[in-house]
Amino acid sequence: MTSYSRQLYHFAFDPHSRLIRLALGEKKLSFEETLVRYWEPDDTIIRLNPSGLLPILVEMPEQESGGQTHRICEDRAIMEHLEEAYPEIRLWPANTNERAEARRLVGWFERKFDYEVNALLLHEKMEKRLMGGGVPDIPAMRAGREALKDHLRYFESLLAVRNWLAGGTISYADFACAGQLSILDYFDEVNWTRYPHLKTWYMVMKSRPCFRPLLNDKLPGMAPSAHYKELDF
Amino acid sequence: MTSYSRQLYHFAFDPHSRLIRLALGEKKLSFEETLVRYWEPDDTIIRLNPSGLLPILVEMPEQESGGQTHRICEDRAIMEHLEEAYPEIRLWPANTNERAEARRLVGWFERKFDYEVNALLLHEKMEKRLMGGGVPDIPAMRAGREALKDHLRYFESLLAVRNWLAGGTISYADFACAGQLSILDYFDEVNWTRYPHLKTWYMVMKSRPCFRPLLNDKLPGMAPSAHYKELDF
Repeated sequence: MTSYSRQLYHFAFDPHSRLIRLALGEKKLSFEETLVRYWEPDDTIIRLNPSGLLPILVEMPEQESGGQTHRICEDRAIMEHLEEAYPEIRLWPANTNERAEARRLVGWFERKFDYEVNALLLHEKMEKRLMGGGVPDIPAMRAGREALKDHLRYFESLLAVRNWLAGGTISYADFACAGQLSILDYFDEVNWTRYPHLKTWYMVMKSRPCFRPLLNDKLPGMAPSAHYKELDF
Repeated sequence: MTSYSRQLYHFAFDPHSRLIRLALGEKKLSFEETLVRYWEPDDTIIRLNPSGLLPILVEMPEQESGGQTHRICEDRAIMEHLEEAYPEIRLWPANTNERAEARRLVGWFERKFDYEVNALLLHEKMEKRLMGGGVPDIPAMRAGREALKDHLRYFESLLAVRNWLAGGTISYADFACAGQLSILDYFDEVNWTRYPHLKTWYMVMKSRPCFRPLLNDKLPGMAPSAHYKELDF
């Protein structure tokens, strides 16, 4: 079997990057990191992924074993690749309907949460600062916060009747959700006490070894919330 | 082997729905259709897919054979499901890098084309009319048209050196791209003569049997472009 060294191009506070860091950690696949300031032009990134979007995973065969270099762009492609190439620890459920449910929930973050929450709340609170885009727009932040409440209520309703977000087993859906919420939690935007099932689930997610690197992430000039690193909060 | 009857909930001019109609056709999987006016509240749809997004595929086992009903929401989950359940005609390439390339290009439409082109051009030209949202905003339409040119040039550059969008074999990437462009072509927004490789590829795509139902789609009050149905245009 070919063994690979891995390079992950990512930004620590990009939710799609977090999902893949968590998944690689959970699958016990080691990787080197290249941190990318995605809002700045970068020819290396455009050559790797013409869309400029993150994360990007490059797998290089280790000398003696041969094989092809793999270049896998963005989280959907990376998730499927990791599952096909490293099935020992599975992150898509075995049951057809649970697998579809996990993929539906991963899509929820891409086609709904990113639009309704991140494009407003995270954009105003973080991106504008990174990009030098001026002061946050308060009504936009407020609209993002309101939308976030609906999403948190929805996750709470799922976790009231399920052990994990998509059903009976941990899946990419849990890492997608935890990656997203962990960023908002850094900015103290999640009122955990209102969502007891979600809070319990997040405590469990946070205590997994794959989560540790994320809890050490820091944004220059923006301190994390007091409980960001606490496993018991 | 369990055999299923299928119901596809979709909107004829939703690009993600078109992708799945094409894929089902290409895989020779029959299905019944429920047309959904996605901009109107619809409890049936929300029960099937809480995000309200299309398409949704429901597979019901035929009486004698037993098995589970499958409910698969949105194109990413449906593509993976169809490939897992019906591998006889494959729409992800067999090679790891080509498969990653096909998934990257499918993602291109979801995370880039939808934002940069459809949210402007298709929204102004079609959605506002469907939703009764007032007159089209001309600067927004123009911005969408400008973005579309960049995308078309990019597809042209790929097809100048490849038989199919992702490489040597037809894949979901081709159906994603053809589904998207076919809608813009209905509105006469694609200047094919400027993109000869793309045009040749689109002629080939259009002449596949799976494409025929799409060429008969009609939007009330909005006539298709003169060449919309023509295989040789």
